[in-house]
Formats: sequence, structure tokens, C-alpha cells
Amino acid sequence: MAPTAGVAGGSVEAMLERYRGLALDALLDDVPEGGPRYLYDLVAEYPRRWGKGLRAAMCLATCRAFGGAPAVGLNAAVTVELFHNAFLIHDDIQDESEQRRGAATLHAEYGVGVALNVGNMTNLLALRRLAANRAALGSGIAWRLFIETELMMRHSLEGQAIEIGWIRDNVCDLDADDYYRMCLKKTSWYTCIYPCRTGILVATGRENAVDVLDRYGWYLGAAFQIQDDALNLTGDYASYGKEIAGDLWEGKRTLILIDFMRRCTPDERERLVVFLSRTRTQRTEAEVRWLHGRLLAYDCVESARRSARDLAVAARHEAERALGAAVDTDDGRFLLDLTDYVVERNR
Amino acid sequence: MAPTAGVAGGSVEAMLERYRGLALDALLDDVPEGGPRYLYDLVAEYPRRWGKGLRAAMCLATCRAFGGAPAVGLNAAVTVELFHNAFLIHDDIQDESEQRRGAATLHAEYGVGVALNVGNMTNLLALRRLAANRAALGSGIAWRLFIETELMMRHSLEGQAIEIGWIRDNVCDLDADDYYRMCLKKTSWYTCIYPCRTGILVATGRENAVDVLDRYGWYLGAAFQIQDDALNLTGDYASYGKEIAGDLWEGKRTLILIDFMRRCTPDERERLVVFLSRTRTQRTEAEVRWLHGRLLAYDCVESARRSARDLAVAARHEAERALGAAVDTDDGRFLLDLTDYVVERNR
Repeated sequence: MAPTAGVAGGSVEAMLERYRGLALDALLDDVPEGGPRYLYDLVAEYPRRWGKGLRAAMCLATCRAFGGAPAVGLNAAVTVELFHNAFLIHDDIQDESEQRRGAATLHAEYGVGVALNVGNMTNLLALRRLAANRAALGSGIAWRLFIETELMMRHSLEGQAIEIGWIRDNVCDLDADDYYRMCLKKTSWYTCIYPCRTGILVATGRENAVDVLDRYGWYLGAAFQIQDDALNLTGDYASYGKEIAGDLWEGKRTLILIDFMRRCTPDERERLVVFLSRTRTQRTEAEVRWLHGRLLAYDCVESARRSARDLAVAARHEAERALGAAVDTDDGRFLLDLTDYVVERNR
Repeated sequence: MAPTAGVAGGSVEAMLERYRGLALDALLDDVPEGGPRYLYDLVAEYPRRWGKGLRAAMCLATCRAFGGAPAVGLNAAVTVELFHNAFLIHDDIQDESEQRRGAATLHAEYGVGVALNVGNMTNLLALRRLAANRAALGSGIAWRLFIETELMMRHSLEGQAIEIGWIRDNVCDLDADDYYRMCLKKTSWYTCIYPCRTGILVATGRENAVDVLDRYGWYLGAAFQIQDDALNLTGDYASYGKEIAGDLWEGKRTLILIDFMRRCTPDERERLVVFLSRTRTQRTEAEVRWLHGRLLAYDCVESARRSARDLAVAARHEAERALGAAVDTDDGRFLLDLTDYVVERNR
């Protein structure tokens, strides 16, 4: 796939940009004006910063690939972007992250109290969108979208709990399967599976084919997350928009770290376990630099990226099978080419 | 009303206890077992600690007073209790509170990351309950309950934003009207108005009478909040279950503090403004003690409690008008007697 990656990447980015623009306009149109300070104005803060718009684009492209007009998918696309932004706000608080999309995180700028509330309001605006489906799509599909949303949120919160629990309990005996299970819940479900399922639902108005892209979404989401973890260690701040090596400061159990845990010497492992037993503020620059160096020296980043590329290939096969004739449409090609994009992107 | 307060208070507490038991059993039955650590087990944590169960009881009593069987209101009662517990978890994070219901707050015990997630999951379990209404009550009423919930959450989050904004901007030129507006949104809507509205909805299956207890709920919620503010300054930790004077440490703009701001000397005002300009951790024991003493010396607590009692009387009149013949039922009497209870309670 390498020879076409440049071209495909280009058109993927153009499609992302177009669908992102559609969803962002609709999202911002719907944020109430006025109201108390530090609420609706800040709901628009993360969406206005540059983001890939991956989730909205997947929802809109799936909707079109399954025969729906873009307008039919717009509400679902805005819904998932709102949930995503709420998740980012809360996730940044939970991870004590300092940077997001090239600027200070909301809680770093305005405090945890404000940020938590803005995250909750962003979730609520997403729920309002679900209520709006009733008039547009009828009660049956609107309820089903509500059920899909509940399921997605449940997986996401469980995934978040798994990751937080590993850090809190300083769990160090993890393997790749543990990572993939966490990743399915924390990332794949809301980033890929949910946008595909809701895109199919609104396009077809039928509930029986809702799951045909599940495997595609599952593999794609895992590949996406691994590349995210890799960029966190090797990326360029200007494109990546988050503090480099932030995951190490936060003690995140990435596939990269798990790989190192299994391959390092007993001495290195001992040093790692002590490092991970500390809180973020107790960790030092020198320790983070040591660990960063070890992960690169053991080739753990490249090894994880190879796994991500394998997952991307598998995702592509799944999509080809599920999309049928739609693989030859712009939206079908976009969904296929996303598999290269997520593992080659630099932001 | 004073002579009957003891007797009425007794039966109010018995009714509260009974309805609380019903709702709590149903709530705990529905919390999933298993799953990742630090999630479902902790969802049950605040509900298991003693609470008044006011919101569930108001919902169930309103349902019965409007002709519904208790079983019909149970789902709505559990829903509001779940939202309440989620709100408490998030609110404790936002206020950096240390104690809740006689023990450490969830974030003090498990960290902000875990607590935020548990709060989100508690909200999600409430949303699941809304989805369950469709089978039990039909699609029309189920949607209306969803719309009611969205409205309640919007008011609550706006109220929270108002209060947080006042603290953040160190707003010191507030009057009683500002307080009451904040209180309507932050407290009355989800504590009283929403339980009444949903109780009426599920009992009658009609949407046209949903607002008849709105004023009752508005006044009752304000009276409840003022008494809460008073207990924060004068209560006994063993019954109140939160740190005494926590509101002063947090810089909360209570009616009591607003009253003091308007009546104190210029020197005291200057000292107060400096105190309020600091963060919670910058405030000292001596400053808090000084302010606490001033609030008592100026009779601000008693003055606020007089306002609360006036509101309680007004709430009672509103309920008598709205309940009609149901004032002579156990549930009607309970709703009336709650007006005394909320201002006389010591926890």
C-alpha cells in the first residue's frame, strides 16, 4: 500500500476537512449564545481548535456509503463530535494533561470546576441532538440511536476505568491482549464503531445491518490509538498538539510500554516499576528521559507501529467485505483509505 | 406551624425513609456487578451512605398524589436519585470538598480521575433508566421524560456555572435576587421541580398538567438550599456529614454571605474581598474563623433562615392550591409537611 499512501493520504485529508467543516458549522450553530460565563463560550473552545474531525467524517461517509444523503447523517455526526469533545475535556482532567490541540487544556486554563462543568454541558448538548432525531427520523430509529449511544458510553467509561485502574494499582503484568481489550472499549467503540453504526442506522433506517462495520471499526480504532501512542513519544509538538512524552509522565500503559515491560532486563524492570509507582508530580524529567530512551532503544515504538499497520490491513479487508459495491464510491474509498491514514498521520 | 413541627417532622421522616428504601433497593439492584475495578462498585458508594432520599420521595409521593401506583413512579425516582448522586460526585470534585455523608468524598479517597469517571457512569445509569421507560410507559411519555431530563440538566449545569463563575471572578456585588436565580437553577430544578414534574407525568400519562407544582418546587428548593447553607455554618458534623464551614473555605456565595457583604463595615468588606480573592488552599483557619464569627455576630444565619421559613410557607400555599383533594392523602400531607421539614432539619 505504500506507493499509494501519499495520494490516498491527500484525498483522505481533503475528505476529512470537508466533513469536518460540515459537522463543525452545525455543531457551533447549535451552541446556545449568552447564558452564564464559563459555560457555552467554553463548549466551543476545543471544537474551534483544529482537530481531525475523524469521527464526524466516519459517520458521514458511512451514511453516504450506505445510501444516505449527507444531511441525514449530519445530526449523528455532530452528536459524536460533541461526545468526543466532552470526552477530551474530562480525559484531560483525569490525566492531568497540560496541552490539547496546541494550547492549554481547559482545566489548566480555567480550573477543574469549570472544565468538568463544560464537559458535562458538552455531553448534554449531544443528548439534545439525540432528542432531535425523533422529529427527523421517527421514534423507532431515534430510540435505537439512544440505545447505541448508551452502549458506546458504557464501553468508553469501562475502558477509561480499566486504564485508570492500571495506573492506580500500578499493574505491571500486562500483555498485548490486555491492551487491545482496553483499547476496544476506550478508543475503538466511540472513535470508529459508534460513528459507523449510527451512520448505517440513519442511512438505512434498518436495525439489522448495524454491525457490519464493527470489526473494521475495532481494528481501525486500535491502529489509531497505537499511532497516537507512538506520536506521543516521537511526534513533533507543532503538529501533534499535546506535550511530547505526556503518556510517560501520566504512567499510561500503552502497547509500547507493555512491550518494553516484557523485554527489558530485571534491573530495568525494577527501575520502571518504581517509576510507575510514583504520582505524576513525583516523577522527574531525568526518569522520563531515561524511559523514553529505553523505549526507543528496544525498538518498542517501531514494533508497536508494525502491529498498527497489521491492524490497518485487517481493517481494510473487513471494510472491503462489508462495503460491497460501495467500495467504488468516494465515501467507500475514503473509509478504506482511512486505514492507511490513521497509521501514517503525523497529527 | 411550630407546635406541629415535631409530629409532622416524625411522619415526614418515616415517609422519607420508606420511599428512600424503595428507591435505594431498586437503584442498587440495577448497578451491574463485575466489570473493571473502581467503577460499578463505586457507583454504589454514595447511595449506600445515608442520605435523606428527598428527591426519590418527592417523585414517588407526587406520583401517588396524582393517582399513580408507587410502582409506576419507581423508575423515575431511581433516575433522579442517580442523577443526584452523579451531581454530588462531580460537585465534590468541583468544590474540592473533603467530606460527604460522614466519610471522605470519592475523589479524596480514590483521586479525581476515578471519581469523575464514576460520576459519569452514574449519569449513564440514569440515562439507561430513561430508555427503560419506553417499554413501561410507551414512547410518547418516555420521550417527554427525556426532554424533561434534558431541561433539568441544562438548568443544573447553568446554575453550577453561575456559582463557579462568581467564585472565579470574585464577584462581590450580589444581592438576594442573584442568589435566588442561581438557586432556582442549581438546586430547585433537580431537587424539587424535576421530581414533581416526572412524578406527575408518569402518574397521569398526560403532559398538560406537568407544571402545576413548579412554584412549590421552586420555593421549597430555595428553602432547602438556605437551610443547607445554614447547617454548613451551625450544624453538627455527626448529623450534617460534611465539614463545618466548608462553604467558607470554598468561597461559596450563600444568601448568608451575600447578606453580610451588604451589611458589614467598609473595613470588614475589604477584608472579606481579600479573603475571597484567594484560592481555597491559600485561605487560613484564622480567616475562616473570623468570617464565621462575623456571620453569626451580624445575625446573617438567622436572617437567612427567616427567609427560608417564609419560602416554606409560600411553598405550602402553592402545594395546597395545586394538590386539590389530594392534600388529605398521606402523600399530599407529606408534600405539604416537607415545607416544615426542609427548614427544620438538622441533616
